[in-house]
Amino acid sequence: MTTNFVSPTMLINDPATYDAVSAAFDAYETALTTNDVAMLDTLFWNSPHTLRYGATENLHGYDEIRAFRAQRPGGNLMRTIVDRSITTFGYDYAVANITFTRAGEARIGRQTQTWVKIGGDWRVVAAHVSWMA
Amino acid sequence: MTTNFVSPTMLINDPATYDAVSAAFDAYETALTTNDVAMLDTLFWNSPHTLRYGATENLHGYDEIRAFRAQRPGGNLMRTIVDRSITTFGYDYAVANITFTRAGEARIGRQTQTWVKIGGDWRVVAAHVSWMA
Repeated sequence: MTTNFVSPTMLINDPATYDAVSAAFDAYETALTTNDVAMLDTLFWNSPHTLRYGATENLHGYDEIRAFRAQRPGGNLMRTIVDRSITTFGYDYAVANITFTRAGEARIGRQTQTWVKIGGDWRVVAAHVSWMA
Repeated sequence: MTTNFVSPTMLINDPATYDAVSAAFDAYETALTTNDVAMLDTLFWNSPHTLRYGATENLHGYDEIRAFRAQRPGGNLMRTIVDRSITTFGYDYAVANITFTRAGEARIGRQTQTWVKIGGDWRVVAAHVSWMA
């Protein structure tokens, strides 16, 4: 988190909201790197609107994302976060961006997640992961 | 836009909100493909929190994004949108995802934009563009 400030009509990085999103982000990262598929499924919004663009696949809708996770090999998922940015807007919206490295991969990875608080729980409504060309 | 429905405590794809985001998305796409740098600058949130991960660069903060656009060659920017998904949450938040093709490029492109209504105007607060490996 960098500077807190209030943009006209929009609250940016309210501390409690920021902390909640940061915790949700960390839970996702732990689940990803330990291949905790049940937790990954929980943290994505269960909706046909949910999307995930991965390094090698484009998944439209929660069911496609869940099916992809169920069949993905669990090896070599560890990664090191180089740079992390979380920004919250109001009390229910956030975006989380990281760059990362992975053993055996020379390129820089990037992950963008859009988070929304739905039914009281923070959920990823869209995600995009790629290697920088 | 696919189904409208109300998630618990969260309004999804309110028609007027959806139309406003769709218009902002279209304005951005036109500005991108015609290299209208002033309009691109306008449509991104002027904040140090703004990020843009491009196919070949990671830009942190509005100033880096603006500097990148100012020096980018204007050629071969046209692209064809294959699939477009916009989802709005409440009245002030949205995510827009597209896949696209470009002449001379065999890979599929993907673009994710997180939009927030700030000071009455829709602005991109984070963007991620990549080619699928």
